Amino acid sequence: MYSRQEMNMDKTIRVARKQCKADLVLKNVQLINVFSHEIYPTSIAVSEGMIAAVGDGYEGETEIDLNGKYVAPGFIDGHLHIESSMAPVQEFARTVVPHGTTTVIIDPHEIANVMGTTGITYMLKTSKYNPLNVYVMLPSCVPATPMETAGAELKALDLFPMLQDRWVLGLGEVMNFPGVLNREGDVLDKLKLSEGRIIDGHAPGVTGPDLNAYIAVGIKSDHECTNVEEAREKLRLGMHIMIREGSTTKNLAGLLPLVNQDNISQCFFVTDDRDPIELLELGHIDHMIRKAVSLGLDPISAIRMATINTAKYFGLKKVGAVAPGYDADLVVLDDLEKFKISQVYKNGECVGMDGKAVFEPASHSNIRLRGSVNVKWIEHEHLRIKATSNKFRVIDLVPGQIVTQSNVESDPKTEDGFLVSDPQRDLLKIVVIERHYGSGQMGIGVIRGFKLKKGAIASTIAHDSHNIICVGVNDADIYQACVQLVRQQGGLAIAVGGETVDSLPLPIAGLIANQSMEKTRSKLEDMVRISKELGSDLGNPFMTLSFMALPVIPKLKLTDKGLFDLSTFAFVDLFL
Amino acid sequence: MYSRQEMNMDKTIRVARKQCKADLVLKNVQLINVFSHEIYPTSIAVSEGMIAAVGDGYEGETEIDLNGKYVAPGFIDGHLHIESSMAPVQEFARTVVPHGTTTVIIDPHEIANVMGTTGITYMLKTSKYNPLNVYVMLPSCVPATPMETAGAELKALDLFPMLQDRWVLGLGEVMNFPGVLNREGDVLDKLKLSEGRIIDGHAPGVTGPDLNAYIAVGIKSDHECTNVEEAREKLRLGMHIMIREGSTTKNLAGLLPLVNQDNISQCFFVTDDRDPIELLELGHIDHMIRKAVSLGLDPISAIRMATINTAKYFGLKKVGAVAPGYDADLVVLDDLEKFKISQVYKNGECVGMDGKAVFEPASHSNIRLRGSVNVKWIEHEHLRIKATSNKFRVIDLVPGQIVTQSNVESDPKTEDGFLVSDPQRDLLKIVVIERHYGSGQMGIGVIRGFKLKKGAIASTIAHDSHNIICVGVNDADIYQACVQLVRQQGGLAIAVGGETVDSLPLPIAGLIANQSMEKTRSKLEDMVRISKELGSDLGNPFMTLSFMALPVIPKLKLTDKGLFDLSTFAFVDLFL
Repeated sequence: MYSRQEMNMDKTIRVARKQCKADLVLKNVQLINVFSHEIYPTSIAVSEGMIAAVGDGYEGETEIDLNGKYVAPGFIDGHLHIESSMAPVQEFARTVVPHGTTTVIIDPHEIANVMGTTGITYMLKTSKYNPLNVYVMLPSCVPATPMETAGAELKALDLFPMLQDRWVLGLGEVMNFPGVLNREGDVLDKLKLSEGRIIDGHAPGVTGPDLNAYIAVGIKSDHECTNVEEAREKLRLGMHIMIREGSTTKNLAGLLPLVNQDNISQCFFVTDDRDPIELLELGHIDHMIRKAVSLGLDPISAIRMATINTAKYFGLKKVGAVAPGYDADLVVLDDLEKFKISQVYKNGECVGMDGKAVFEPASHSNIRLRGSVNVKWIEHEHLRIKATSNKFRVIDLVPGQIVTQSNVESDPKTEDGFLVSDPQRDLLKIVVIERHYGSGQMGIGVIRGFKLKKGAIASTIAHDSHNIICVGVNDADIYQACVQLVRQQGGLAIAVGGETVDSLPLPIAGLIANQSMEKTRSKLEDMVRISKELGSDLGNPFMTLSFMALPVIPKLKLTDKGLFDLSTFAFVDLFL
Repeated sequence: MYSRQEMNMDKTIRVARKQCKADLVLKNVQLINVFSHEIYPTSIAVSEGMIAAVGDGYEGETEIDLNGKYVAPGFIDGHLHIESSMAPVQEFARTVVPHGTTTVIIDPHEIANVMGTTGITYMLKTSKYNPLNVYVMLPSCVPATPMETAGAELKALDLFPMLQDRWVLGLGEVMNFPGVLNREGDVLDKLKLSEGRIIDGHAPGVTGPDLNAYIAVGIKSDHECTNVEEAREKLRLGMHIMIREGSTTKNLAGLLPLVNQDNISQCFFVTDDRDPIELLELGHIDHMIRKAVSLGLDPISAIRMATINTAKYFGLKKVGAVAPGYDADLVVLDDLEKFKISQVYKNGECVGMDGKAVFEPASHSNIRLRGSVNVKWIEHEHLRIKATSNKFRVIDLVPGQIVTQSNVESDPKTEDGFLVSDPQRDLLKIVVIERHYGSGQMGIGVIRGFKLKKGAIASTIAHDSHNIICVGVNDADIYQACVQLVRQQGGLAIAVGGETVDSLPLPIAGLIANQSMEKTRSKLEDMVRISKELGSDLGNPFMTLSFMALPVIPKLKLTDKGLFDLSTFAFVDLFL
């Protein structure tokens, strides 16, 4: 019902010419015009889900007097990973549509790293029949690195058939910028097959000749800028600047000074990653508009960066504006300071009212996805490692960051010659268990900074390959937490005293819950609270844990293949 | 050699990273950056016809120090009919490329009205291997009207296969706006088949509900605005405003007040129709830039409207900017007031120098086109018409315009009962002879305003069906001029005393010469001078003549089917 329809041209023309009634007329609106950068009073006539006319004197089967409220085009998020919301698409839609978002461009990078093309297809399928357009950029980096075991390997020719899908717009963020610069075959193949389509970039800190090379191959956007200088260099070289405000990476305040009347059409808003807590508390693209205006941007410019600029970059011709021929995706705003959203329309149907979804999310019970936690039967002894030396490496957390330090400690705590956690010195055992192929492959290390005094916490969210990762104060709890994740087919778990004390099942690829975002958020908050009761003083120990297996971020990380030291770009032994 | 190549990504990356020399480096340039709206000093590195990098410190096999001259992207004309230049594509390229034009979007409407899809294919074929990108918008209105006989009838399904050509961008100006508004089947079919492609508009004076309807079906541009109010309404409704400065229609000064920093990305430059005289004397898009700046527009904005804005509207990803990955189509400017163009580069090769082409136009001698003047053998008596009444209709020219008045006169001059021209009263006989099917169909009328005292002038350029049109002071000269056009397979001719005194052959569809534009211009000027010697005081009697068979322009016109009165939308008899 909400998917884009074949236009009934005949009826559209008759409605526009006032020869028959519109389905819906919104009267007495203050139109935010993103083409002319103006606001003025008018009416909007809708026919079969599309805008037939903008002007006065239209009659409709339904007529709504908006009493001078503002109407903006539905908002667009130009780059995000829905997986970060831990919600399936229909639940994500239920959450963000009342915030005015009616189109998103997703890169299903996380689920693809677990499930491959099956994961991408799952996202495409579940994107149908919700009042939210979901366009897909194909994940370009699966696996993200060869230093860990991902659930799939997507070569250029694996992606190629999916490029033909009408909801697929191009190639997702090319994170492998070293691969581009070093002219690696498969990376260049992906770029060549995407020629003429949109290719998104991801090039933090890349500058000068390297940046020129990265752009010259056709990559025309970046969402990793953290300061105006970096963004200005990229914009001058023709990149579109996606200004990001995610849960962990907040660049709006830093980048807004870049934007002026002369370059604004090159800039637009994205969230990249927003967790359930931020989505429910702050909102989505509406939050970026609100924040940008509070930082001094004029409201029409903010709306343009949330609508037409994004649509134009992606070549979307029917969204991003309130004008004849566009989808009737509309946001009704009470004011232009707080941007209170009183109504949201998708293809002419009211789907959001005073912050609440007023549509029934599509049922996707018929779309089944295979289980993703495929682990070889583990026994307690599999988690043990012989202490072969008095000196051992330690991953050291850096407070508030996802980088780590690499240090060496002496006198490991042992039991029967096997290394065990030493909570007194905050030297905790950490394990990563390959979960895609049942290979039994496992990495074991020691980490400092979690400060747990009791129990173990485990997760199947571990960027980017999303193997099982677990940290704990003793082998029994580590074992129990990991087994719990296998039993529930993914998610988060906490074990204490050899028993599971709480868990959040994420049965969809071990990344996504099958429940309301509110429930997920509540469970997440419970589990963070319990972790703190167990001794941790981290803001969100599960979030921190999810980056400890990411070997592309310095310095010492643990994957299912072992300890990896990015400074020497080599695997290293736990014991020296 | 100039057509867009498959990128050599490997080499491009190495050049950008300074790992090998560029083919060409333009050093010490003042770059006009259309993304950031800035001008700053830098260098441009070119590899295999594309820009590999913009930045300092590059080395090239060839290095050119531009000593601080300005470099802009190659200019783009967003809408034109090359046929109006009376030059084949390669000759058109030789003329405009030195003026900085490196990309044009043409609507081969004229040749299609004569030759149908053969004409379109001919334009596509001859567009290859010149240093000028020629993109095609498919003519949507062939024939333009049912009131005259055109050389082809292109239905939606005739156009459909051509939409697949990589150089075809969409559907050309939908002049038949009454057809859209009245929901005529074939017009809507063309719009439906073009869904998702670019659809250009042509909607002079269309406003309000009609304009909404016209835009709602997907038409996203207009080049017929003549004042700011009209343009503002269209822009607010989402249209792109093509600001036109043609030979007969000059809208730049009138529309420039519309453009501001907030809406400029919706506006760009087109010429629509430029004759050889204006092209050679004034130039092309460079002339529009120059004039816009002289009218007060800042130079960077003018360049944007001549480059990136046009490219973005048409979805062209490799032209319109000087940045990595773009074609190395560059214009070197000595200054930003007179915009003297000292060099033009196409795909990194110097193709224009100080206003002269420095390339060899492609030879298209192997591309043959059938003759287009297919006329049933005519005898003197075919041109005669019995004077059946004392009252007869007269087409009255309106000085300086293409509209006419319809008047009635008495006492026709006759010979043997047949109507003849009456030069004393300036009541001259005008004939239109169908030239496509050899049908023998012919219209005969009387026109006032040409003021010829001797001879006859004839042309196969007669919008939009381009039948033979001739006006003269006696039947013998009319006969001779028409026969001359048949003999030379189209063009212009002047006959005096039963002899041809001058002629311009236009063997390509009866519209286009097969010689240099300079020769065509010189011949045109000769023929206008001779026409004036024969008594006419019109600026260009051939230009005026070419609009006398155009029945969509009020009020009284003559086609091969007879006299057409647009005020009653009916054919009328010569004699009342």
